[in-house]
Amino acid sequence: MRRMNRIKTAIVGASGYSGMELLRLLLGHPGVELSAATSRQEAGKALSDVFPRFRGAPGAELNFIEPAPDAIAATGAKAAFLALPHGVAAEIARALLERGLRVIDLSADFRLADAAVYEEFYGHPHPAPDLLEQAVYGLPEVRADEIKTARLVASPGCYPTSILLPLLPLLRGNLIDPATIVANSMSGVSGAGRKADVSLLFCECNESARAYGVPKHRHLSEIEQELSLAAGKNVTISFIPHLIPVNTGIATTTTAMLREGISAAAVGDALEAAYAESPFVRLLGKGACADTKNVTRTNFIDIGWQYDSRTGRVILMSAEDNLGKGAGGQAVQSFNLMFGFSEIDGLQNF
Amino acid sequence: MRRMNRIKTAIVGASGYSGMELLRLLLGHPGVELSAATSRQEAGKALSDVFPRFRGAPGAELNFIEPAPDAIAATGAKAAFLALPHGVAAEIARALLERGLRVIDLSADFRLADAAVYEEFYGHPHPAPDLLEQAVYGLPEVRADEIKTARLVASPGCYPTSILLPLLPLLRGNLIDPATIVANSMSGVSGAGRKADVSLLFCECNESARAYGVPKHRHLSEIEQELSLAAGKNVTISFIPHLIPVNTGIATTTTAMLREGISAAAVGDALEAAYAESPFVRLLGKGACADTKNVTRTNFIDIGWQYDSRTGRVILMSAEDNLGKGAGGQAVQSFNLMFGFSEIDGLQNF
Amino acid sequence: MRRMNRIKTAIVGASGYSGMELLRLLLGHPGVELSAATSRQEAGKALSDVFPRFRGAPGAELNFIEPAPDAIAATGAKAAFLALPHGVAAEIARALLERGLRVIDLSADFRLADAAVYEEFYGHPHPAPDLLEQAVYGLPEVRADEIKTARLVASPGCYPTSILLPLLPLLRGNLIDPATIVANSMSGVSGAGRKADVSLLFCECNESARAYGVPKHRHLSEIEQELSLAAGKNVTISFIPHLIPVNTGIATTTTAMLREGISAAAVGDALEAAYAESPFVRLLGKGACADTKNVTRTNFIDIGWQYDSRTGRVILMSAEDNLGKGAGGQAVQSFNLMFGFSEIDGLQNF
Amino acid sequence: MRRMNRIKTAIVGASGYSGMELLRLLLGHPGVELSAATSRQEAGKALSDVFPRFRGAPGAELNFIEPAPDAIAATGAKAAFLALPHGVAAEIARALLERGLRVIDLSADFRLADAAVYEEFYGHPHPAPDLLEQAVYGLPEVRADEIKTARLVASPGCYPTSILLPLLPLLRGNLIDPATIVANSMSGVSGAGRKADVSLLFCECNESARAYGVPKHRHLSEIEQELSLAAGKNVTISFIPHLIPVNTGIATTTTAMLREGISAAAVGDALEAAYAESPFVRLLGKGACADTKNVTRTNFIDIGWQYDSRTGRVILMSAEDNLGKGAGGQAVQSFNLMFGFSEIDGLQNF
Repeated sequence: MRRMNRIKTAIVGASGYSGMELLRLLLGHPGVELSAATSRQEAGKALSDVFPRFRGAPGAELNFIEPAPDAIAATGAKAAFLALPHGVAAEIARALLERGLRVIDLSADFRLADAAVYEEFYGHPHPAPDLLEQAVYGLPEVRADEIKTARLVASPGCYPTSILLPLLPLLRGNLIDPATIVANSMSGVSGAGRKADVSLLFCECNESARAYGVPKHRHLSEIEQELSLAAGKNVTISFIPHLIPVNTGIATTTTAMLREGISAAAVGDALEAAYAESPFVRLLGKGACADTKNVTRTNFIDIGWQYDSRTGRVILMSAEDNLGKGAGGQAVQSFNLMFGFSEIDGLQNF
Repeated sequence: MRRMNRIKTAIVGASGYSGMELLRLLLGHPGVELSAATSRQEAGKALSDVFPRFRGAPGAELNFIEPAPDAIAATGAKAAFLALPHGVAAEIARALLERGLRVIDLSADFRLADAAVYEEFYGHPHPAPDLLEQAVYGLPEVRADEIKTARLVASPGCYPTSILLPLLPLLRGNLIDPATIVANSMSGVSGAGRKADVSLLFCECNESARAYGVPKHRHLSEIEQELSLAAGKNVTISFIPHLIPVNTGIATTTTAMLREGISAAAVGDALEAAYAESPFVRLLGKGACADTKNVTRTNFIDIGWQYDSRTGRVILMSAEDNLGKGAGGQAVQSFNLMFGFSEIDGLQNF
Repeated sequence: MRRMNRIKTAIVGASGYSGMELLRLLLGHPGVELSAATSRQEAGKALSDVFPRFRGAPGAELNFIEPAPDAIAATGAKAAFLALPHGVAAEIARALLERGLRVIDLSADFRLADAAVYEEFYGHPHPAPDLLEQAVYGLPEVRADEIKTARLVASPGCYPTSILLPLLPLLRGNLIDPATIVANSMSGVSGAGRKADVSLLFCECNESARAYGVPKHRHLSEIEQELSLAAGKNVTISFIPHLIPVNTGIATTTTAMLREGISAAAVGDALEAAYAESPFVRLLGKGACADTKNVTRTNFIDIGWQYDSRTGRVILMSAEDNLGKGAGGQAVQSFNLMFGFSEIDGLQNF
Repeated sequence: MRRMNRIKTAIVGASGYSGMELLRLLLGHPGVELSAATSRQEAGKALSDVFPRFRGAPGAELNFIEPAPDAIAATGAKAAFLALPHGVAAEIARALLERGLRVIDLSADFRLADAAVYEEFYGHPHPAPDLLEQAVYGLPEVRADEIKTARLVASPGCYPTSILLPLLPLLRGNLIDPATIVANSMSGVSGAGRKADVSLLFCECNESARAYGVPKHRHLSEIEQELSLAAGKNVTISFIPHLIPVNTGIATTTTAMLREGISAAAVGDALEAAYAESPFVRLLGKGACADTKNVTRTNFIDIGWQYDSRTGRVILMSAEDNLGKGAGGQAVQSFNLMFGFSEIDGLQNF
C-alpha cells in the first residue's frame, strides 16, 4: 500500500455502533489522521477506554471531546463524519460546512430531496431545508461523480442500501413491474443502536425473530425516492424489516414480477452491466443465495438472484453488514471518492 | 387435570429433533403411555441416555427399539407417530395401519392428494398412492372433524402451518388476490434436522442469515394444495425460506393485495371468525407483530397483521415453534382429536 | 395428576426474569391459584400483556397490582413469593408475615444468619434483623423438614445452589480440604436481571465471555455460611462468576483437593448417599460432564464429577437453570414442602 | 505501510477454521505472496469458492491443490504453515524441511520436547522424534530470538497460550505456589474444528455450556512443559476446558496461591516487566476482567488480574481469539520474526 497524505478527519457522535465502526475503519485507514472524535457522554475519556477493543491501536489514545464545531475545526479536520440522530445532525453539519469541512452525514437529515417527505416520515419539520440542494445521496455505485465533488454527502441507510443496489438496475432497464415490489429484510440487533432499552437486552433478542415497524418504516422514504428516480416515475413498495439475533448483518429478499416479454437472463445481464466494475458489489449469479456471514465486517454487498417461472417473479437476495456497507464502510467509500483516494483504501477487510 | 385412560402409543423415528419434541410431549401427556420408541441408530439405548434432558422423566427408562412393525404392534400401541424421512414413512405407515394402529405421519408422504404432485416435488414416485385417499391433512383448525375419525393423518410441515393459518380465512372470504401472495419465512436451525452436516455446524449458522431452497421449496406443494382448496381455484405463490441462528421458531411474513372494495377491517373479522374458538391460534390484532420467543416450546401460533394503505397490501405476521405447532405439537393436537381427548391435553405449556 | 386443593398465592415483584419464571410455574401448578401479582411499573396491566408468552394461559388475564400488603392479603393469599431487590424484600416480608401469609423470599435478605455478614457483603445495615431467626435457608435437599414448617423461607441464590449441592456431601464427609476449594461458574444473561443497561444489550453480550465481580461476589456470603455449617468450621473459598451468551443456565466447575487417604470412589458414594432420594438432583456419575442445555426450564441440577489423580483434585461439574433450580423452581419446591404437596408438583417439566 | 519484499508462502491444510484464519491473515499480509494452499478435500476449487468470504480478495482466485511436497516446493514457497491434524503434520513437515522450506506447524507434533510425553498424551508413538530437537515452541513473547532463526516452529495451542502468558512471569518470579494452580477455560465452538459431528451442530451448542475433556486434556502436556521450564521444577496443574456458544474466543481464569511474603503488587509488576514491550499482550491491570469480545479477530491477548486477600489467591483472567492469538495470528507473528518483518505486520486488525 502506497504512502498517503493523511487527511485530518473528525467523527462526530462516535460512541454508538456506527461510530464504533467508523473508528475501527478510520483508525486503520492509511489516508486518515483521526483528529477528533466527539461524544457528549464520553467526553474526556480515551477512545480505548470507551471501546477496549481499540486498546493499542495507533490513534486510540485520543480523547473524546464535546461536539463543539469550533473545537472540531480547530483540530485541522478537513472532513467530518456525523453519526448522530436525525434532527441533531443537520445543525452541526451546517456549522461544520461553514467552517470549511466536507461532511459525510450518516443520519437521515440530508437523504431526502423533499423537505415535505422528511416531515411526513420523521414527524418534524426539516431542520435545514436550505442545505438539501447541495446534499448528494451517497450511494457510490450510483453517484460516484457527484460524490467526488460534494461538500455534503448523505450516506444511505442500512436497509436502503440492501434494497436499492439489487433493484436499481432492474428498474432502470424497465425489467420489472415496480408496483409488485415486496422487500423483506432481516437485521442484526446493532441496527437498533446502542441504547439502554429493555427490548434490546440479550434475553429479549436472543432466540427471537420478529417483524417490526410495519407498514411504514422511515427508510421507505429514501428507498422510494431512489427507486422512483431509477424508474422515471413514482414507485411505492412494501417493505417489512425484521430483527434477528445476530450482532451485525442484513439479509434482504426482494421479489417483483418480471415484465412480460422480459427474459430471466436480462436480470443477470442488468446486474452485470451495472456492477462489473464496482469493487464492493459481489454478484453471486443466478440461483445463489447471499449469506450475511460472508460480508460481516466488510464493505461488500453480495447479491444473488433467482427467477421463479411458476409465478413470474424475480427473487433478489442481498447481504451486507449493516454497520459496514450499510453505514460506516459506505461512508468511508464516499470519503475515498471525495478526497481522491482509491475507492478501496482502508476498506480491504476480509 | 382429570385422570385419563392412557393410550399406548409409539414414536417411530424418535432420535431427531421432531422425535425429541414428540418424546417430550408424550412423556408428559396425561392420556398417553409411551409403549415404543424406535431408532435404528439408537436401538438398545434408553431414551434418557440418548436425550439426557429426559433423565428422571417417568417413562424415559424405555429403550429404543428397531422400527419393526410387529414389534411395535406387540407393545399394544394403538397409535403411532412417524417422524421419519419422506419416502421411508409410507412403508411403515402401511404396515402399522394393517396391524390396526392409527397413524400420525409427520413426513410429507401423505400430505398431497395427488401422487403426481408428490413426484414433481419429491423427485421419486409416490411410495403408497393407494393410501392417499384415506389420509387427512392434519390441520386441526381446518379439519377437526375429519381428523377425529381418521386412521391416517398427514401432519403438516412447519412452513405450511405458519403460512396457511393466516391466509386460509382470507382466501375463503375472497378478500385477497391470490396471484399476489409472497411469503417470507425465517426458521430456526432445528428445522434442518439433526444430521451431521458441515453447513449446520454452530460456526456456520451462528452470526449468519441466509435464504435457501429458492424458488421451489418442497413445502410449496402442500401450501398451494391447501390454498387452492380454500380459494376454489389454483393458487401459485412465491415462498422464500431463510435460516437464522435460533434453535427453534418460525416467523413468517406474508403479503398480498387486498381485493378492490375490501376494507382492512374485513381481514381482522375473517381471522376472528375463523379462530375465535381455536385454542392454539392467538390473534394479536391489527398492528401487532408476532415474535417467535413468545411461542417456542408451545403449540401456539401467534398471528398479527397490518394493512398498508400506500400499496394496498395486507401484511400477515405469524410465529410458531417449528418443532411445536410446526411438527410435534400439532401432531399431538390431532392425536387428541383422534382419541377423544380435549384438544389441549398435554399441550398446556407456557 | 390428582385433583388438589388450590392455595391462593401471590407473587410480589413479578416483572423481572425470576418473576416471569415464577408466573410460568405457578400458572401451571395444579395446587395454586394465583391471586395476586405485583409490579409497581406494570400495575394495571394484564400479566399476558406484559408477558405475551402467557396469552391464553388460564389465570394470565389477572392484572398486576401495586405491592401493597393489605391489597395482597385481601386477595386471600396464604403464600407469597417475593422476587424483589435485596433491601426492599425485607420490609414487605414483614408486612405479609404480620398478615398471616407464609413467605418465600428469593432475595438475599434472609439468607444470612448473621446481620453483620449481610452488612459486609451488601453494604447497608440489615433491614430486619429480628426476623433472621425464623428464616430458613431454603435448600430443600438439605433442610426439607425445617422448610415444611417455616413461615419465612430464604430461597438460595443461583450460584450458591450450583456450588453447594455438589460440595456439601463432600464437606460433611470430610472428604476434601476446604481451604483448596475453587469454584468457577458461567451464567446466562438472565441472571443479571431485566434492567435497561447498556452492558446487557444483545450486542454487548453476544459473542462475549467474561469474568466479573471478582474477588468477592455477594453470593460468597451465603455459600461460605452453608459450607462452614457442613464442614463444622469456617470455610473460605475462591469463586469466579462469568457471563456467557445464553439466556439461562449456570454451569459450575468446582475443584478441591481430596484429603489424604480418601479414595475417589468415596466422592461418588457421598453424592449417592446424599441425593439418591432427591427428585431434582440427577447424578451423572464419574467422568460425566453436566450440560446446561439438559436442565434449562426444569428444576433439575445435574452433577457429574471426575478425579484427577495427577493433582489429587476432585472436579465437580454441575448444571442448573439459574431461573429454575437457581430461583423460581427451587422456591416452588419449598412451597410444595410448606403446603403439603408432593415435592415435584408443578415442577414436572422436561 | 512500507512496500515489502513478498515471501512466497504455502498453507497446508487450509480448509478448516485455523486454515481459514491463516488465509484471511496471509491474503492481507503486505509481506506475503500466497503461492499454495492445500486441501485434499477441496483440491481443484478456488479459495473463494470454498470460503465465499474471500471473494474479491487479491490472491483468492488461487486454487486449492493436493498436499504434495514437491508441488508445494515448486511454487517457490519459502515458508509453509501446517494446519493439519497431529500425527499427519510431522510427515509433511519433514518433507518440506528437506525441500528447504521453513515450517510453522500449528499441530501438536513438535510442541513437546519429549517423545514419551507425546505418546502418553496423544496415544501413538511420535511420528518424527529426530526432528524434535530443532523445533522451537513458538511463543514469541518468550522465545523471540529462537524463533527468528528456527527452521521449524511448533506454534502453541489455543488453551496453552491463554494459560501460559499470564502464568509464566509469576512462576519465573517464584511468586505463586505451582501446586495450587487451577485453570478454567471457556472456548468458542470453532476450537473443536470444522468437522461434521452431531455434537457440534448449532442446536447442540447454542444455549449450552459444558465442561469436556476432564481431567487430562491433551493441551496439558505442553502447558506443563512450559510451566515447568519457567518454575525450574516439575509443575502439574488442574485444567478444565468448557465449550460455550460463541464462534471464537477463549476466556481463561487461572487461580493460584500467592507465596507467603509476596505482595499482590508483585503480580502486577511481574506482568508489566514481562510484557511492557510486547505488542500483542494488553495488560488491563488489577481488578479488570478480560472480555473475549475485545480480542476476537485480533492477535491480542488481554490479561487482567485480581488478588483475593480472603483466600490468598491471585486470579488471572485472560482473553484471546482461539483462531487468532490461539492459532493463526500467533503463527503469523512467528513468521514475521522468522522472515525479518516487524512483529505486527499483517496483524494490525481491530
